[in-house]
Amino acid sequence: MKWHTVYHWMETAKQREFINITTIVEDTVKETGIREGMALVSAMHITSGVFVNDEEEGIKADFMEWAEKLAPFRSDYRHHRTGETNGDAHLKSLLFHHQVMIPVTNGKLDLGPWQEIFYAEFDGRRRKRLLIKVMGE
Amino acid sequence: MKWHTVYHWMETAKQREFINITTIVEDTVKETGIREGMALVSAMHITSGVFVNDEEEGIKADFMEWAEKLAPFRSDYRHHRTGETNGDAHLKSLLFHHQVMIPVTNGKLDLGPWQEIFYAEFDGRRRKRLLIKVMGE
Amino acid sequence: MKWHTVYHWMETAKQREFINITTIVEDTVKETGIREGMALVSAMHITSGVFVNDEEEGIKADFMEWAEKLAPFRSDYRHHRTGETNGDAHLKSLLFHHQVMIPVTNGKLDLGPWQEIFYAEFDGRRRKRLLIKVMGE
Repeated sequence: MKWHTVYHWMETAKQREFINITTIVEDTVKETGIREGMALVSAMHITSGVFVNDEEEGIKADFMEWAEKLAPFRSDYRHHRTGETNGDAHLKSLLFHHQVMIPVTNGKLDLGPWQEIFYAEFDGRRRKRLLIKVMGE
Repeated sequence: MKWHTVYHWMETAKQREFINITTIVEDTVKETGIREGMALVSAMHITSGVFVNDEEEGIKADFMEWAEKLAPFRSDYRHHRTGETNGDAHLKSLLFHHQVMIPVTNGKLDLGPWQEIFYAEFDGRRRKRLLIKVMGE
Repeated sequence: MKWHTVYHWMETAKQREFINITTIVEDTVKETGIREGMALVSAMHITSGVFVNDEEEGIKADFMEWAEKLAPFRSDYRHHRTGETNGDAHLKSLLFHHQVMIPVTNGKLDLGPWQEIFYAEFDGRRRKRLLIKVMGE
């Protein structure tokens, strides 16, 4: 069994943004030479998420609107008594979940035809880490 | 370490439906002879989900109503400019999440007394794939 | 490869409560001596969740309020025809998700600076089990 862990620094230009990280995960798996295994892709921050869905501009805009509808920015979150203003980003992170496990079969990411992997930034414009941990043989 | 990957074709009669797949996962694990390990159960489509909860008709109807309330069908999702009409199914897929990891202990799915595994179809009536990848020894 | 499975009994004083279980997971990993691996932390009940976020009183109160807003207590869930009254707890469990996978690197939980692991009880005041399954070497 091989175990290989890498950390990617993410820094978005916008406060909220979805970044397609499929190629980053793919390249990380290729480096290991692993043919059969799994790759854990996990945000290391509590205001970010990771999810699998469709690389299509319209649906990505729909996702962001939906995030704002179900976990809206509000000034009066209790969390803001600490001086923070990102309570909504914590809720959005829970809604989208912070990690996925990607199966690796025959040396490739075993994704369906439309599945792409996204990093979801809900409190950006600063450096944050993403962990990719590949296991297999 | 053994790695065993199977793909199940799912085709629901209804547009939206929850299918109990506990027996499918159980049988897949038994085939491998694995005693200690984990099974990744993951939808390969972006309008489906996989979750663990209760096999009870009432709660399943409550789940579907809840999905519609939090991620309603609307004609005006931006995604529909592509010609698609299933924007809500993408949102429902995010809400329910597309995968779970099932622990395997002493050759059995290590689930609590009421835990059952469900495939959640939100855009059905066509063939879609479910991946089960078992690892262990 | 080592596989190590433990079950923790959880019993909350309140009906709804978030319990920080980071130390429990940490101790379980240390016992195994595993340096490289992953730990699955998974609720064994269908009215509980497990998630990773921030140990801060304000945000935890915001989470609970948010859970109630998106998955409110109602007397008329169909599930209640069985005699149960906890339909909302099932929905809250889906919203927060019932499991996380924690990476283990150099013998330590590989979490970001603010990440802590929580057990989310939505139907408490009785004994329920949490599974931790560690794999690695």
